[in-house]
Amino acid sequence: MSSSTATTANGCATNGGETEDEWVWNEIKAEARRDAESEPALASYLYSTIISHSSLTRSLSFHLGNKLCSSTLLSTLLYDLFLNTFSSDQSLLSATVADLRAARQRDPACISFAHCLLNYKGFLAIQAHRVAHRLWALNRKPIALALHSRVADVFAVDIHPAARVGKGILLDHATGVVIGETAVVGNNVSILHHVTLGGTGKVGGDRHPKIGDGVLIGAGATVLGNVKIGEGAKIGAGSLVMIDVPPWTTAVGNPARLVGGKEKHDDVPGETMDHTSFIYVI
Amino acid sequence: MSSSTATTANGCATNGGETEDEWVWNEIKAEARRDAESEPALASYLYSTIISHSSLTRSLSFHLGNKLCSSTLLSTLLYDLFLNTFSSDQSLLSATVADLRAARQRDPACISFAHCLLNYKGFLAIQAHRVAHRLWALNRKPIALALHSRVADVFAVDIHPAARVGKGILLDHATGVVIGETAVVGNNVSILHHVTLGGTGKVGGDRHPKIGDGVLIGAGATVLGNVKIGEGAKIGAGSLVMIDVPPWTTAVGNPARLVGGKEKHDDVPGETMDHTSFIYVI
Amino acid sequence: MSSSTATTANGCATNGGETEDEWVWNEIKAEARRDAESEPALASYLYSTIISHSSLTRSLSFHLGNKLCSSTLLSTLLYDLFLNTFSSDQSLLSATVADLRAARQRDPACISFAHCLLNYKGFLAIQAHRVAHRLWALNRKPIALALHSRVADVFAVDIHPAARVGKGILLDHATGVVIGETAVVGNNVSILHHVTLGGTGKVGGDRHPKIGDGVLIGAGATVLGNVKIGEGAKIGAGSLVMIDVPPWTTAVGNPARLVGGKEKHDDVPGETMDHTSFIYVI
Amino acid sequence: MSSSTATTANGCATNGGETEDEWVWNEIKAEARRDAESEPALASYLYSTIISHSSLTRSLSFHLGNKLCSSTLLSTLLYDLFLNTFSSDQSLLSATVADLRAARQRDPACISFAHCLLNYKGFLAIQAHRVAHRLWALNRKPIALALHSRVADVFAVDIHPAARVGKGILLDHATGVVIGETAVVGNNVSILHHVTLGGTGKVGGDRHPKIGDGVLIGAGATVLGNVKIGEGAKIGAGSLVMIDVPPWTTAVGNPARLVGGKEKHDDVPGETMDHTSFIYVI
Amino acid sequence: MSSSTATTANGCATNGGETEDEWVWNEIKAEARRDAESEPALASYLYSTIISHSSLTRSLSFHLGNKLCSSTLLSTLLYDLFLNTFSSDQSLLSATVADLRAARQRDPACISFAHCLLNYKGFLAIQAHRVAHRLWALNRKPIALALHSRVADVFAVDIHPAARVGKGILLDHATGVVIGETAVVGNNVSILHHVTLGGTGKVGGDRHPKIGDGVLIGAGATVLGNVKIGEGAKIGAGSLVMIDVPPWTTAVGNPARLVGGKEKHDDVPGETMDHTSFIYVI
Amino acid sequence: MSSSTATTANGCATNGGETEDEWVWNEIKAEARRDAESEPALASYLYSTIISHSSLTRSLSFHLGNKLCSSTLLSTLLYDLFLNTFSSDQSLLSATVADLRAARQRDPACISFAHCLLNYKGFLAIQAHRVAHRLWALNRKPIALALHSRVADVFAVDIHPAARVGKGILLDHATGVVIGETAVVGNNVSILHHVTLGGTGKVGGDRHPKIGDGVLIGAGATVLGNVKIGEGAKIGAGSLVMIDVPPWTTAVGNPARLVGGKEKHDDVPGETMDHTSFIYVI
Repeated sequence: MSSSTATTANGCATNGGETEDEWVWNEIKAEARRDAESEPALASYLYSTIISHSSLTRSLSFHLGNKLCSSTLLSTLLYDLFLNTFSSDQSLLSATVADLRAARQRDPACISFAHCLLNYKGFLAIQAHRVAHRLWALNRKPIALALHSRVADVFAVDIHPAARVGKGILLDHATGVVIGETAVVGNNVSILHHVTLGGTGKVGGDRHPKIGDGVLIGAGATVLGNVKIGEGAKIGAGSLVMIDVPPWTTAVGNPARLVGGKEKHDDVPGETMDHTSFIYVI
Repeated sequence: MSSSTATTANGCATNGGETEDEWVWNEIKAEARRDAESEPALASYLYSTIISHSSLTRSLSFHLGNKLCSSTLLSTLLYDLFLNTFSSDQSLLSATVADLRAARQRDPACISFAHCLLNYKGFLAIQAHRVAHRLWALNRKPIALALHSRVADVFAVDIHPAARVGKGILLDHATGVVIGETAVVGNNVSILHHVTLGGTGKVGGDRHPKIGDGVLIGAGATVLGNVKIGEGAKIGAGSLVMIDVPPWTTAVGNPARLVGGKEKHDDVPGETMDHTSFIYVI
Repeated sequence: MSSSTATTANGCATNGGETEDEWVWNEIKAEARRDAESEPALASYLYSTIISHSSLTRSLSFHLGNKLCSSTLLSTLLYDLFLNTFSSDQSLLSATVADLRAARQRDPACISFAHCLLNYKGFLAIQAHRVAHRLWALNRKPIALALHSRVADVFAVDIHPAARVGKGILLDHATGVVIGETAVVGNNVSILHHVTLGGTGKVGGDRHPKIGDGVLIGAGATVLGNVKIGEGAKIGAGSLVMIDVPPWTTAVGNPARLVGGKEKHDDVPGETMDHTSFIYVI
Repeated sequence: MSSSTATTANGCATNGGETEDEWVWNEIKAEARRDAESEPALASYLYSTIISHSSLTRSLSFHLGNKLCSSTLLSTLLYDLFLNTFSSDQSLLSATVADLRAARQRDPACISFAHCLLNYKGFLAIQAHRVAHRLWALNRKPIALALHSRVADVFAVDIHPAARVGKGILLDHATGVVIGETAVVGNNVSILHHVTLGGTGKVGGDRHPKIGDGVLIGAGATVLGNVKIGEGAKIGAGSLVMIDVPPWTTAVGNPARLVGGKEKHDDVPGETMDHTSFIYVI
Repeated sequence: MSSSTATTANGCATNGGETEDEWVWNEIKAEARRDAESEPALASYLYSTIISHSSLTRSLSFHLGNKLCSSTLLSTLLYDLFLNTFSSDQSLLSATVADLRAARQRDPACISFAHCLLNYKGFLAIQAHRVAHRLWALNRKPIALALHSRVADVFAVDIHPAARVGKGILLDHATGVVIGETAVVGNNVSILHHVTLGGTGKVGGDRHPKIGDGVLIGAGATVLGNVKIGEGAKIGAGSLVMIDVPPWTTAVGNPARLVGGKEKHDDVPGETMDHTSFIYVI
Repeated sequence: MSSSTATTANGCATNGGETEDEWVWNEIKAEARRDAESEPALASYLYSTIISHSSLTRSLSFHLGNKLCSSTLLSTLLYDLFLNTFSSDQSLLSATVADLRAARQRDPACISFAHCLLNYKGFLAIQAHRVAHRLWALNRKPIALALHSRVADVFAVDIHPAARVGKGILLDHATGVVIGETAVVGNNVSILHHVTLGGTGKVGGDRHPKIGDGVLIGAGATVLGNVKIGEGAKIGAGSLVMIDVPPWTTAVGNPARLVGGKEKHDDVPGETMDHTSFIYVI
């Protein structure tokens, strides 16, 4: 975002003396206060999860700890784990903020940052994945896999801790998303529900898709194997893709065929004109 | 039951002095008592959830409150919310009863009303959705979305609170169902698991499918855009539909083609002969 | 382990004085101890779930009881139910061990038996199903269905208690799997996520697929009707199958076509060269 | 209370158009809002327990339901029980309000009505007792005793459901208070912690103390048998009383002796000058 | 009890072919069924805690496990611990049954065996103590002390695991009872609330009271040091005893004096005429 | 431990390079590891509460958060509150360590530091009180009182947040202890259960006891009013004290009389010879 209180695409402005992260956090708190005022029945939830916290990192760690806890994995333990991991790597918070912005910009059904932070299971699954990924990178595999398992249970989103995922990610609806161990997902990617980025059975090695920046993958699409989906490409809903897709190109069908590049992309399933408007189902 | 009362379609009868709602509730209690008698290990659950309650509204509110609660959204709060909303609009209970009947009539695996009330995640998701929808209509959006989020987490069913859903609905298996913001679903519709009623990316506006009365949508089907699926139409399992489907017509395939009207409907995926027998997977 | 003991197919060896079940349980405990040592934050979970128990049956019953409990179905009640059922039929434990071995052998992402026992929702769903199936066979249908419902909520895996499932099963990722009432699944079958073994609407009767030994069914495949999938057959990801598939044959597409027998199976979606390496997405 | 916003003893005023119950409830909500504003960490608790509720009855029922629930007695069940009982007998709410006023007037450590409602275990125990007493009177003994048991566990206050207790009661500190089956406690009585109103072993019959209006019983006092403690009498801390005590008289010692009437009451243990100031230990 | 269905003191009869333990368990189940029938709101609790179990040992283990569990000591773990310990030593169950009988016979406020089993914190504390004592005897001190701590938190009853306690014990009201490490309590002893059996500071060694069979200790009494309270003695409420008390003698006062033997015992605090009727405060 | 380090009074030694706080924390972890090794059933609890933590502050905050949480005051919130408060004032940890040492030195029944940290409700109540006291001093009264209320519910220990309490405190058994608003408790004080430090009804002002360093107060003693209990004084069990007690003097009885100074202290209730051995009842 440009500095000195430039107005953003969705009508928000930032003050020169405040980082983008701070601005988003202040927005979230203001939204939560408004909602608490208008809906007392929800105020308790909004205060405990957002308003009472001193930072987005703490709010998110608290929320994830309470969402993902179980009778054998206590909320206090998970809260600590999230808080320590987020605190140890500032880039995690930047990615969180980019994801929040992605939801606001790309999903017209997202009515506020707070809405996304509280309710988007795809958003929450991605944040938990980033923590699991960092733990995996530190060779703390058992706890990374335990976290992975809780996310798979609670959100029905299954991202292997080893998978590398960029920032500005939108997992819309998110139920049933599966992303394999050697998959790589670029920045500003949008993935709808029931999408699989899977392997093809070559045992071991680099066997999962590489998804470029700005790619959109429609609901129920299955991408298999170490294929490359180029920057800005689009994958139609329900497609089965086992081939490379060039940048700014669309693939549709089962099995998928390439149906258009920059110039031809109006009539494909779940595809749309530009980077910020496409297959939304909410 | 008295032998002089009218027999319903599925062999049930109602007494003249008793409404249908009361009759169904009495059936449920009788079923639960029988089950409690035969299975003491389950009796506690049956008493707390069904037998101890004075009405179907209370039983359902209790059950949903306990199913959807979390450490930050208490069961008592949700119970209140459900109870107050069901009490404020009697049509909600009628829809509940119609859904219970739909499960009994259309799903041979449904062995009792109590079975459906207790165990069908699709049934429970629809009841919670109707409450969220009413809250949305009252402009209580934050709490409607919080409820929506709990249903998406707990049941893996994602119905936007703004979507309009009729009565006599069967969401069979239900996992992975996604229904978008401007979708409309008629009465007596059956929807299998993994079905998406999604948008096509036209930002804002009326962008989701309109499903007519009595439609059947097979497992894994994806219907995208503001298309009209006519009364009594059938959508084959795994189909991708982006076109209008006329009444009493069947669409199959990815992308879907129309394969038959009233006369031709025997060989399509997951399609069946008549209104009350089709794709059941339980 | 002593170096003189026989080496098994996957590099493991069993000592002459120890049954296979005991060997696997000892492995699990050793793995859990190692993990507890290296990751104190997880040690509490590992001790409560694995290390403190005197047998695999107790560990698994404890874990399932705590995973599947709710505010109205207490962990102590479920723990009792699992423990009593596993104790009453020794074949259940053998099947559990076979499933653990299947995950280790067929899924390269499975780094230990303990990892599978703790974290694989597909593995846990199958174990709970076997208990539900036994309760169903004993005509304890209400409690079998209550268990079925908890598994569908918690793991998003929906296997009708009446369905017959063999041993050595791998439900990889598992989210969204639906298996109908009269389905039969053989031994050593691998089923990826979003797979449906569904009916075609023939009311009642034997209406679901029969899956032979060693079959592999790719992600998102839908198999409908009382069709026979022969031993060693493979079903491509995203396929819709409504026909019999001969043994050692591959079916792909929507609708599915047979694309190859033993000799031709290299280019189908999600298919692989040999019996023990194929569509893994972790 | 006098009408037209007369100022009460502790500086509060009521508006002519509002009942005393409403006035107290409005005060409580205002206090809770102030506290929520000044202490965000507590706001969630204050909203869920007080501010989100539409009446004192609902707030109290919610709070008691969550305080007294256990894994086998659900909060939703208790909430229902409290709400239904309070709603069926308006005199219960009047007694609640009188108890709140008693705490404010007699206990200088009570800084607000909300403080008492939320935190005074003696206040909460008395409210739960009144519900148990009413259930007992309706011959619903098993549930009255279950409630009694929960109060004894959670608050360490043990009042038999059959005991008759007036209004304007202050149980200060409250831990260890035991009140027997045939005891009667008048209005405006203050009882400190560790006080026993016990029997003397005459099997059955009317065997417990009768406590007159305005009596004060100091910490650790034991009153045994069907003795009469007259109006306005005071019992010194640590006394053992097995005799009648005339009105406005003080009894002290083990065993107790009468040490003074209206004129002599300055030097006895835990005794004080006037009706509204005495043995407070907070 | 005499055989061939002799009528007991409180009107119960046993069948010749049934042990006393079985008879009591059958009574408890019958009582619980009656209560469940008359009070549906309590039925869930009664079924989960009593009716669904196959034995008194299981019912009690379940109830204690759920009463004493916490977020860090799971109910399933405690349930196992209780079940295993009760199963390993049949004398524990005999003592339980004797305690149940003691409550029925000596406490007129005890309206049923089920009432005692479910609601008497003193009864439950004693049962948990016997398990802790056995674990202590097996040199499993850390877990014995953890159990001791849970009992002290939940029931406010503090009995050192090393203390030896007989059978037929009634801890009436129970709050605040403290029994030290080297104390010995005989059979058929009744102890009211706030009673301390404490040491006098002689470091180490045998420093706590020895309580003979059939002793009654009134509310709030404190017995200190290695003194001997003879068989059938009575200690008045609120007494401080630091001397031996001969058999069938009464001690009262602070400090206590001996006030009578067999012939003189009518006017002492909390003392009564015969062995089975005395200081009851419920 | 190196043999060259200084030996402390109770046989412990600290290494020159390690602070006393670190030494105690290392002892606790070593004890917990030993216990976990010998008692697998308790290992989960020991790891989650002690071994997995990086500091005593974290372990204690975790334990208190889980002990004091409720359905409306989440463990994560309390954990944060404890952690932040302990971190903001290092003197709190020193006091904690002094209390741990007090338990080890003065209570022969205290078998390890870990035993005290985990199981002593008096120890835990004091630690929570110090946090409440600090919040009170910061004028965060509502949350200080909420914490006070939780401690009173869970531990049956009631210490007003305004009361000033020193370090090296032993609250033995602790149930029923009540300490009023203007009370002051010095260092190295031992207080048994059921002790009240109460007011005498002088409204407002400084109205509670002042307890000097090294005082011992026996079980059930009641000290009322702004009296001064001098350094090293002893109060007999069950005494009622309303007068000043000079240093190194003993008071016993109801009402209490002074029975001896330094020279005469052998025959009073619960009194003992020297500063570190006295009335222990465990």
